[in-house]
Amino acid sequence: MKSKISRAVVKRLPKYQECLTRLLEDGVERTSSSELGEILNATASQVRQDFNNFGGFGQQGYGYNVKTLLLEIEKILGLNKDYKVVILGCGNLGKALANYPGFKQYGYNTVALFDVDKNVIGTEINGLKVKDIAELESYLDNNKVDIVYLSCTEDAAQDLANTVADKGVKAIWNFSHYRLNVPEDVHVESVHLVEELFRLSFYLNEN
Amino acid sequence: MKSKISRAVVKRLPKYQECLTRLLEDGVERTSSSELGEILNATASQVRQDFNNFGGFGQQGYGYNVKTLLLEIEKILGLNKDYKVVILGCGNLGKALANYPGFKQYGYNTVALFDVDKNVIGTEINGLKVKDIAELESYLDNNKVDIVYLSCTEDAAQDLANTVADKGVKAIWNFSHYRLNVPEDVHVESVHLVEELFRLSFYLNEN
Repeated sequence: MKSKISRAVVKRLPKYQECLTRLLEDGVERTSSSELGEILNATASQVRQDFNNFGGFGQQGYGYNVKTLLLEIEKILGLNKDYKVVILGCGNLGKALANYPGFKQYGYNTVALFDVDKNVIGTEINGLKVKDIAELESYLDNNKVDIVYLSCTEDAAQDLANTVADKGVKAIWNFSHYRLNVPEDVHVESVHLVEELFRLSFYLNEN
Repeated sequence: MKSKISRAVVKRLPKYQECLTRLLEDGVERTSSSELGEILNATASQVRQDFNNFGGFGQQGYGYNVKTLLLEIEKILGLNKDYKVVILGCGNLGKALANYPGFKQYGYNTVALFDVDKNVIGTEINGLKVKDIAELESYLDNNKVDIVYLSCTEDAAQDLANTVADKGVKAIWNFSHYRLNVPEDVHVESVHLVEELFRLSFYLNEN
């Protein structure tokens, strides 16, 4: 199931959301393709093209109402809904994700945590008891899960991805470094932290 | 100190590094702009243009030697050097960063950790004792630091950024959600985890 919208556009949508949120907070009521482009380092024409993928939102001679456009973008991003999230792997990273304050406000609700380590199973993280990974399949049989955060070790990643894909989960946020193979209808976003570090050292060495 | 290289090119450089590393691991000795473009979802001409920013590396009719090109890209990214890293904020995220196995192999060496919490100061993370944030300035006076990971709370971020910038640190990896104001010669990469989640829910809602 390949998206009709290009990856580049999908990557820019959250930037529009962030930028419009800020404009709204600053009390700005109306904006334009060129203003948005300037903030996001793009041309006005690119902004218009991006929005045309979704039917376009502006009014000739007026531009965009910030609040209306923000709501439209958030709807496209699915931020008007709630998501049930399961975290697989409760090391420091899994814990950090479970405690991260910025997810819940957008509807990403962690409902269960799993780990393989007997010392971790049964401990409480942000109000949830960590479950035994051995119970994952039966949990997925009995509970609808929208998104899985894969914060396990690299060698466990593919097996766990297979399990959750088999059980009908359609979205995986992959923090392991493993390049996952998943069925076409499962969406994976992989976090490559080291890329941002590379950019920092690029700039440190540029001159 | 604005970079002469466009942000889009700098963003693609780590992708080339990753892709060439994989080709090398797969025993591929020689590649071309079109092969690289195919893997990275770009045109051959874009790949050539990217490399022309650095003088170009290919040979007409031969393409690129994978190993040589990888070494060139890694040099541009500064991966042939070592970096001294200090982590500010040792909650779950700071701990995860301190324990992350993927940084050291590229020369990013954590040399000190700081926190404000009396219960955390003095504890050991990956072989380093967490220092009191009150000692940060004198530490920076006496030790050269290349990169700071800012894994503190949002309200502490700007003050800490000011301090490290004052003391000559030129690169900040910002995990707080605060939009930092820093002098022009300080490079900031900000992590926006929520953007990747937004993309997942976009795909979940597309159909």
